[in-house]
Order: sequence, then C-alpha cells, then structure tokens
Amino acid sequence: MSIKNVAVVCGTHGNEITGVYLMKKWQKAFEQISRASFSTKLLQGNPKAYEINRRYVDRDLNRQFASKDLENPELSHYEALRAKSINQILGPKGKSKTDLVIDLHTTTSNMGPTLLMPQKGPFYSRLAAYVKSKMPEVVVFCDEDHKKNEEHHLLCTVGKYGVIVEVGPVPQSVLRHDVFEQSEQLTQHILDFVELFNTDALPKLPSSIEAFRFVKSLKLPLDADGERIGMVHKNIQDGDFKPVKPGEPIFQLFDGGTVSLDGDETLYTAFVNEAAYYDNNLATSLMRKICLEVE
Amino acid sequence: MSIKNVAVVCGTHGNEITGVYLMKKWQKAFEQISRASFSTKLLQGNPKAYEINRRYVDRDLNRQFASKDLENPELSHYEALRAKSINQILGPKGKSKTDLVIDLHTTTSNMGPTLLMPQKGPFYSRLAAYVKSKMPEVVVFCDEDHKKNEEHHLLCTVGKYGVIVEVGPVPQSVLRHDVFEQSEQLTQHILDFVELFNTDALPKLPSSIEAFRFVKSLKLPLDADGERIGMVHKNIQDGDFKPVKPGEPIFQLFDGGTVSLDGDETLYTAFVNEAAYYDNNLATSLMRKICLEVE
Repeated sequence: MSIKNVAVVCGTHGNEITGVYLMKKWQKAFEQISRASFSTKLLQGNPKAYEINRRYVDRDLNRQFASKDLENPELSHYEALRAKSINQILGPKGKSKTDLVIDLHTTTSNMGPTLLMPQKGPFYSRLAAYVKSKMPEVVVFCDEDHKKNEEHHLLCTVGKYGVIVEVGPVPQSVLRHDVFEQSEQLTQHILDFVELFNTDALPKLPSSIEAFRFVKSLKLPLDADGERIGMVHKNIQDGDFKPVKPGEPIFQLFDGGTVSLDGDETLYTAFVNEAAYYDNNLATSLMRKICLEVE
Repeated sequence: MSIKNVAVVCGTHGNEITGVYLMKKWQKAFEQISRASFSTKLLQGNPKAYEINRRYVDRDLNRQFASKDLENPELSHYEALRAKSINQILGPKGKSKTDLVIDLHTTTSNMGPTLLMPQKGPFYSRLAAYVKSKMPEVVVFCDEDHKKNEEHHLLCTVGKYGVIVEVGPVPQSVLRHDVFEQSEQLTQHILDFVELFNTDALPKLPSSIEAFRFVKSLKLPLDADGERIGMVHKNIQDGDFKPVKPGEPIFQLFDGGTVSLDGDETLYTAFVNEAAYYDNNLATSLMRKICLEVE
C-alpha cells in the first residue's frame, strides 16, 4: 500500500504552541511539507483551546478518538464534538481517507525529540529506523501498540497509520527555538520517509533499533483525602528514558521521607513530571527498553 | 529600626505552585519559619487563581499595588479587590503594620534562585550580601529601585520592606524538587538575616556584591498586524544573567532571518522567554551588571 494522503495536525493541545507556529510557517511555505508522491493537509487540532491558551476547553482532545466514543451521540462536550468533526475531515476511523496522520505535540518533560507510535508493523518499524538513522537523538516510544487501533483514543489513530511527534522540554504556552527546530526536523524526516517508502527507494535499514515500550503510569503519593503528600524526586527529574532501579527514590515526601521504585525490574521513565498530567496525579510513565525488529 | 512582623506570601500567581506547597509544608511545621525576634505570618496571595490553575482570574495580582490603584474605588476586577484586601491584612501601604513582606514566585526562565529587590538602602544591600554569602548561586536583581515605593505595583511593596524570591526554571503548574528546595533555602536565609539584623549579630559582610539592575524590556518581533513573526533565539534561551553583545542574535524570525541586539552596550538578560509575559509580547528583560555597595 502506498501513502496518498498525509495530514499534519498541530495544536491538538491549545497550550502546546510549537505546532501552531510551525503551521503558520508551513502555510506560508507549503512546499516544505509537500512531496511528489502524496498530498499533504494541514489542520489545527483545537483552535478554540489555543485561543484561550489552555490544553483543552472541556476535556483532553487527544483522548476522544476511541471508535465507541466517536460513535456515541451522547458525548457532546466541546472536544467530543471537535473529535467527531475531525473524524469527518480526516477519517472516518477504520476506513480513513487519510493514510497517515502526524500529530505534533510538546511536553514539559525532558524527552528530547520523541516519535510515539501507537501501532506496530513493518511501516512503523521502518519509519522509526529511518528517522533514527537521520536523527539519532530521536527516541522511539511504543505506546500500547498491542491494542487494537479502534480502542486507541489518540487523535493520530483516526488515520490508517498515525504517529505523534512529541518534543520537550518546553513549558506550556512557550515557544522554544530548539524545540521548534527539532519538531520541524523530525516532521521533515517522516515526510521524507513516506516519499521514499512510496517510491520504493528506502535506503538499507538496520535489522533492529532501540525503543521503549510503555509499561504503566505511576501516581504521585496521596494521603487518604487525596491530597498530594510528595513530589517527583530530583533524582528522576529530567531523567526521561534513563534507567531507574528498584530501591531508587522516585518521590520526595513533604515530611522528609522518600518513596522508592518497587518491584524487581529496572525500568525507564518518560513524561516525568509532565505539567498536563497533574490533573490525574500522574507522576511518570514507566517504560521497558526493547529491541524493535525492523521488518 | 527592628523587624517585628514578617509576612511570607505564597501563590500570588495561581500557577506558580511551589510557594503553595511550601506554605502547606510550613503550616504543619511553623517552627521552620519562626524566629525569636519577630513574628511570622503566612498568606496565600491568590487562592482563587490557584484553584483554577491559572496565573490570575482577571488581571495579574502582582501589578495591583501602586498606591493610586489601591486607593481607587473604581477598580473592581477580582485582583484589584484582592489587592485592597491584602493591603488591609498586611498594610496599609505607606504605614504598614508588616515590616517585611517576602513574596514567593517561580519563573519558566532559567534564572536559578534570584532575590528581587524593588527598593534600595542599607537593609536591602546587607540582606543581599548575607544571602549571597550563604548561597553564592543567588542572583541579586535590583528591579526599578530608583522608583518611590508608592509607585511600585508589586505585592511585596505593601510592607515597609519587601522582596521577591524568584526561582526557575520550572514550567507553570509544575512542582520541581530542586526549585522547591532552592525556594525554601533562600527564604530561610532571609529569615535568618532578619533575626541577625534584629539582634545586632550580623557577621562581617563584604563591602560590595555583584548584582543586576533592570534597564528595559524587549518585545518579541511583530508584524504590522501585531502578529508575532519570530521567537527568542536559541543563543539567548536559558542564558539568564549571561552577557549579550550588540550584534548578537536575540530573535529568530520564522522567515529565516534574525534580529540582533542593537545599541553599543553589552547587557545581560533575565526572564528570558518567560511564559507569563507572552500576553504582553515581552521576550526578555535587559539588565546591567552592577557593583552594589553594602552600606
């Protein structure tokens, strides 16, 4: 199958402004995201949230794309409606007119340029291997890629294929030149890959690459009333994709104590102390380092 | 004059949550901010803004304390009213019952622990010299200290003396362990200083210290419609209190060009790319490095 229609989505979260400024730049220089073998569409995910400089109006737009939610007429909050509308514009999910959705995000965590893939298969592993060969600092993040696409709630899953470009650290509502450049470069490499994939001109790729697979999320420590009693420990702050061994401190309690990683496996962190995840008291994702076969 | 009443104000900006968590900690361990020679009061500046996780409800609370505004009955937006209320609790400005106000802030800029002083005189210069002797990484920021106190609009100017503890970088709405600790330590050193000042037990201080004095703010580049056409250049990002020479790039334009610092004086940056200043299109403060005499 060749990729005929690509959508680049920007500003799915209203206070992640890097994508929105990239969009403004590309609107004036559309040739930068055009390639001969496919057509590209640019879409701003949540313009209303951008206007009010918040992640979302009612609910997180990037959690509204599970098929059952898209099909549920009872869901009528702002982002549910926007998701249904995007599903019309780019989808419909499951029988999508868009072959690849690239959704641009930023994080307050120190994740560098990350390629997040919610599905697996030859297209994805080749894409990841190509991007890493061009930009070795890119981290490949396999995000619950065992799930069926219809169960995934991410915007990018509205396409036949979908990936997230996730770059940080950058505070919410801030434009950083370095993060802007990394987001741009990573997107360009993805578009180049699609062009080479379509024209059967891919270079020789390694047979496997290093990647990280999501295992679980860790919550901030709370008391019986649900009040936070600690914060992310400075030993893991900024240590995204670094190993944490069982017994190493992960939380600093306000009363002076610490909480350590339990279990018996060394894991790796991601989305460490991400601002947007405080709503749900999420402190960090825990990942397993894997060897991703390139099929 | 001795200092009898000290107020520690936290959460003046609702999404600078470090101070709020320090307040919660100190409420349970009040002895940590108590000293023998004075009484300490803890106050949350803007609890309503904290509740909605935003900098402010209607306007920036830390711009509402000019005497003429506090005395203006026409001003009735939320933060104008809160300022008048704080003026009653801690002030009244000009004849204040509070001898020293310490107002805790954070910034998304890479400013490290900074002591911001909107007035000058022997109390301030000794305070700064003492704090720097205990915590050499503290930067002393003289903020329009030529102005009369009544003209200053900062919350801390409601006291006879007032200073700001400003620590970064930390994204809005995030608690960082390192920034939490630096804010706590800097506050403790100020309280220790007051105790030593009151009991005439100050150690020998240097005759002068390095400090930075605010010169002017620099706006992001805009087009004729007021649309931003560039961003803070990566050469100055994270370079707070580092020198910038005339001719060095300070803005990267989206069309590929750059804008350089003009004038003929090497200046120093502060509040580089601060998230909260985007509302006013402020890109950075420019400072002059000075030698502050310790009187």
